[in-house]
Amino acid sequence: MTGTLYLIPNTLGESEPESVFPPRNREIILSIKHYIVEDVRTVRRFLKKVDKSIDIDSLTFYTLNKHTDPKEVASYLKPIAEGQDVGVVSEAGCPAIADPGADVVSIAQKKGYKVVPLVGPSSILLGLMASGFNGQSFAFVGYLPIDEPERSKTIKRLESRAHNENQSQIFIETPYRNMKLMEQLLNVCQSSTLLCVACDVTLESEYIKTKTIAEWKKEKLPELNKRPSIFILY
Amino acid sequence: MTGTLYLIPNTLGESEPESVFPPRNREIILSIKHYIVEDVRTVRRFLKKVDKSIDIDSLTFYTLNKHTDPKEVASYLKPIAEGQDVGVVSEAGCPAIADPGADVVSIAQKKGYKVVPLVGPSSILLGLMASGFNGQSFAFVGYLPIDEPERSKTIKRLESRAHNENQSQIFIETPYRNMKLMEQLLNVCQSSTLLCVACDVTLESEYIKTKTIAEWKKEKLPELNKRPSIFILY
Repeated sequence: MTGTLYLIPNTLGESEPESVFPPRNREIILSIKHYIVEDVRTVRRFLKKVDKSIDIDSLTFYTLNKHTDPKEVASYLKPIAEGQDVGVVSEAGCPAIADPGADVVSIAQKKGYKVVPLVGPSSILLGLMASGFNGQSFAFVGYLPIDEPERSKTIKRLESRAHNENQSQIFIETPYRNMKLMEQLLNVCQSSTLLCVACDVTLESEYIKTKTIAEWKKEKLPELNKRPSIFILY
Repeated sequence: MTGTLYLIPNTLGESEPESVFPPRNREIILSIKHYIVEDVRTVRRFLKKVDKSIDIDSLTFYTLNKHTDPKEVASYLKPIAEGQDVGVVSEAGCPAIADPGADVVSIAQKKGYKVVPLVGPSSILLGLMASGFNGQSFAFVGYLPIDEPERSKTIKRLESRAHNENQSQIFIETPYRNMKLMEQLLNVCQSSTLLCVACDVTLESEYIKTKTIAEWKKEKLPELNKRPSIFILY
């Protein structure tokens, strides 16, 4: 019998586990002894939050980030071949969504291991739900290019695709550059284009608003600096 | 004080609430008296499952489907203006994602009401997490066209976009046509293209496998008939 690779979502910032995880996640976490993580400290803190009684010292952690050698990644799945379960925990939100976890999942799939994703918060999905935009067709494209003119070109291309294909276009920015992106969107997009900003999703300070570019221009912009945000054009 | 529009996910089939909803969802549900739903019977059953003690007769239900007049939809949000919360419940999964709920969210956003999405299961997101495909760039495109040659053309276009833009392409089919779609994907796509099939997500019978088209062709296909499935090309 081989084990299972569980994909375990983390909170999006300092929210309570009760508000974002089903009770099942805790049960599964309590049965796992091997964890693949980006940063051991974050995940220790996460596990303690899920259940104070977890004996962290009895667990094995394997570090996965963009510098990890693919061969080493494959070795992280050895416990599965030996019948033990392995968990992948994200730094925030769902593993393998805008997150390096996808590489280890891909290896597990190639080896034919069972992969089980657990329910948890995704700012992309929650933002889209609350945007009022088309949820029958949508795309997430990650980060925009940093340098001009590539950046403005990409914004225009996303705006065209939103209009021509009726497909909501979702993207993110490094939080300290959010305000710059917001201003750029207001400069580059057409006044009738709809822009949704979803900030601090699942936190008490959650802010999710949809307005046309023209409406956003008329108002004082929300403070997005250093607050995790997603942006959606439609 | 105006109320809040809560977006409340439903189970994906007959799974237990404990395995897919955070405890917070139940607390919020217990405080809501007005529900916008596609089918009143499904939602009554859902509410009873969340908490047997809910007094269904004290609740007001408003029906939303593709035949509902937009003016009527706007009237469903009246309780919010009067300071009461309103819940939108999906037939399965997350409201406004591949679901008519987006229209009512759009009206709420236009009116400036607070919209709060709750965490729950999305077969699209869970399937993508477990696929091992690119989660930094992905698109969901809903249903494929039914008639040929449009259908094959669309499959080829999605396959090209997956390769050229490095963007995972997610789509669905009416469950009784799943096997036909599966066969068609094997015929139309290149042998090295990766296809993930995610079936009965969050149920005990959950099946999520990624293989190349060539590998899928060599094996007995999984039984997908009438089982809700998502398909991802990469």
